[in-house]
Amino acid sequence: MTTKKFLLQEADIPTRWYNIAADMINKPRPLLNPATKEPIAASDLYPLFARALADQEMNQTDAWIDIPEEVRDMYKVWRPTPLVRAYGLEKALDTTARIYFKNESVSPVGSHKLNSALAQAYFCKQEGVTNITTETGAGQWGAALSYAAKAFGLELAVYMVKVSYHQKPYRRSIMQTFGAQVIASPSMSTKSGRAILTDNPNYQGSLGTAISEAVELAMQTPNCKYTLGSVLNHVMLHQTVIGLEAEKQMEMAGDYPDIIIGCFGGGSNFSGIAFPFLRHKLKEGKDIRVIAAEPSSCPKLTRGEFQYDFGDEAGYTPLLPMFTLGHTFAPANIHAGGLRYHGAGAIVSQLRSDGLLEAVDIPQLETFDAATLFARAEGIIPAPESAHAIAAAISEALKAKEAGASPVILFNLSGHGLLDMAAYDQYLAGDLTNYELTDKDLNATLASLEKII
Amino acid sequence: MTTKKFLLQEADIPTRWYNIAADMINKPRPLLNPATKEPIAASDLYPLFARALADQEMNQTDAWIDIPEEVRDMYKVWRPTPLVRAYGLEKALDTTARIYFKNESVSPVGSHKLNSALAQAYFCKQEGVTNITTETGAGQWGAALSYAAKAFGLELAVYMVKVSYHQKPYRRSIMQTFGAQVIASPSMSTKSGRAILTDNPNYQGSLGTAISEAVELAMQTPNCKYTLGSVLNHVMLHQTVIGLEAEKQMEMAGDYPDIIIGCFGGGSNFSGIAFPFLRHKLKEGKDIRVIAAEPSSCPKLTRGEFQYDFGDEAGYTPLLPMFTLGHTFAPANIHAGGLRYHGAGAIVSQLRSDGLLEAVDIPQLETFDAATLFARAEGIIPAPESAHAIAAAISEALKAKEAGASPVILFNLSGHGLLDMAAYDQYLAGDLTNYELTDKDLNATLASLEKII
Repeated sequence: MTTKKFLLQEADIPTRWYNIAADMINKPRPLLNPATKEPIAASDLYPLFARALADQEMNQTDAWIDIPEEVRDMYKVWRPTPLVRAYGLEKALDTTARIYFKNESVSPVGSHKLNSALAQAYFCKQEGVTNITTETGAGQWGAALSYAAKAFGLELAVYMVKVSYHQKPYRRSIMQTFGAQVIASPSMSTKSGRAILTDNPNYQGSLGTAISEAVELAMQTPNCKYTLGSVLNHVMLHQTVIGLEAEKQMEMAGDYPDIIIGCFGGGSNFSGIAFPFLRHKLKEGKDIRVIAAEPSSCPKLTRGEFQYDFGDEAGYTPLLPMFTLGHTFAPANIHAGGLRYHGAGAIVSQLRSDGLLEAVDIPQLETFDAATLFARAEGIIPAPESAHAIAAAISEALKAKEAGASPVILFNLSGHGLLDMAAYDQYLAGDLTNYELTDKDLNATLASLEKII
Repeated sequence: MTTKKFLLQEADIPTRWYNIAADMINKPRPLLNPATKEPIAASDLYPLFARALADQEMNQTDAWIDIPEEVRDMYKVWRPTPLVRAYGLEKALDTTARIYFKNESVSPVGSHKLNSALAQAYFCKQEGVTNITTETGAGQWGAALSYAAKAFGLELAVYMVKVSYHQKPYRRSIMQTFGAQVIASPSMSTKSGRAILTDNPNYQGSLGTAISEAVELAMQTPNCKYTLGSVLNHVMLHQTVIGLEAEKQMEMAGDYPDIIIGCFGGGSNFSGIAFPFLRHKLKEGKDIRVIAAEPSSCPKLTRGEFQYDFGDEAGYTPLLPMFTLGHTFAPANIHAGGLRYHGAGAIVSQLRSDGLLEAVDIPQLETFDAATLFARAEGIIPAPESAHAIAAAISEALKAKEAGASPVILFNLSGHGLLDMAAYDQYLAGDLTNYELTDKDLNATLASLEKII
């Protein structure tokens, strides 16, 4: 369990976010109005999102966006985060690879989500917004936004997927401790919620339904905006502080990553670690491999289709260009709740389509094997989501050993698993299973896609 | 929630532990053999503890003990920990006091317990020990020792108080994830456990019973030693890295604490933050106040008696000079499980007797009021144990405000509460109660004490 941290000073916290869209040769495709199929403008998003965030969403020209001093001040609560040379893991694998991880689990809410939550809360506050809404599945995003809302004096209502509301009561408690309202979704507080409950009173909810409720509440509440923790370009933007810090830290370590790995749900932590390194691939042709690690039960990048699709189940959002499994896709109930989303964001999808990144899909049991090995070797219990990145890193390290190669592998530890111990319990008891996604089930939801691309 | 961290470098991790016993004018009283009432020697402890630890326990001459490089290397995993100026809390209280806290919650197991766990595991390993045993209540110590045992390649058996084993399943899962054996106590695996279960098959256990089982297993297992997470002098010694770092960080902040506060169970985190500062009171007469914050349901320092008593319920240990409530005292079932211990360590008890430190006792509800206020102001959800220190700090800050004074208050945030959210749930729902300790109940257990002092 020997280890080595590379630590930066507060002055090293980035002063600007990196906007990869500005450097992409093939720009991400535009969002479309579902009725007209025409591209929408930033102003079309103003009713729903803070203007600054809508503008960031559409910005394809400025490679660098200043981080407001108030946001950077809040980053100082836990940033810069450590980069760790995983000697313990290397030893356990007896690999010739050099493995590093960026430890985003040290944030007060336990994950990288706070990087964007603080930015979104700040911009809302700046524009006179008093109330915000959001949805959350496992609760990592909801917990982060609850913290950020409290930090910037906003009222927050979180629609939490009902099955998680009951299964992960402690992330709900965290949100409530920070002062947020948490509503199990579907609920009777919105038209979309009531409609679903009338139809099926025992429905346990989905992220798509929760988004619909959060959007609806935001539209009906004065001075209220909606916020989202992944998928959208401005969320990826805020997360680039991860990779920008990691770049400096890899330099301190005297190494440069050959392989960069992040787990993949909607893309926020993956993009955060990968985009700053990818810019050197885009601009200077740097020879790096970038790998998105997704669950084999929700494999949009490996088995999905690059097509326009809705961001939510009910179809309230604009059409997004996404590698998608179809917005009606119901992912299996894996413990990595943060990866149970049907689509990838517009930028990642374009990069994937252009061959600039790879994807692997990993069965649930393999991720818990990796998580347990990592915990015993490095002393940190990873979130089930992050365990996908660890599993992918282990797989690359073992391949390197077989090939007698010594690549430098960098992965993002997006969060800790201290609130996911029920999952570990199940794993240790031998009660955890894999979920196979059959072609038949996959094709059923893909068939619902309009063919626009 | 504005905040300011004072960060040290790895090179600033202390190279020596501070042994306050060497600087005490009135030395801590000796441990006694219960049969003869004669002082015991370090060698009498060798069968139970690693020799190096037994020697540290008895050392009253060397003020500084070198930290082995292997232990210091492991400290680098998360140390130095941040010192934080709690601007957010100050603002919420509108106080004239300046409040700082040392954030020990950033350790991979979430508390300060790792500081001693790594040291104890190391010394055991050095002496050829292959197996260790311990007991744990809420599980903070058990989790830390599981991590440390894995780090140094030792097998670990943890007797976990049965009520906690079932109520706090996730700390149990953490121990198991790190590879420890966890046994609900009382168990059928020891003579003392079997005796209790035969008598009362539904007994839910106590820390005292768990200690007895852990001691018994250690004595019967080849190459096996027993370890303890608090109370004993060598545990306090290891925890002084907290205060030694804090001293440097207060200097960085350009301030010096007038008041130093730690929550109090057996004394480990309290001593860790306080002893390095107390040495200046002992040696140079520095004018500081040191306050131990204990639960009003388990108030050994405020309402207990300074007397010789056993460390465990069954009476297996030597007699310890302690402020105690009596070793048969059954503390109420408060959520701050780490503070549910009947006695204070020998050094703290002597310092208390000599008027060198103060103590306050705080009802459970007040600690959760404080914890929630702190969480919303500083963004960290504290452990119920640490909430006692926060409540005491708030009380001092409010007194300062009333008096128009501006003291510098430093408290130790010994751990986070992410695995205690069930307690927060109960608090937020209004279902949490205080436990009054009546004089009658207190006197009943105090009456059992032999009067030796």
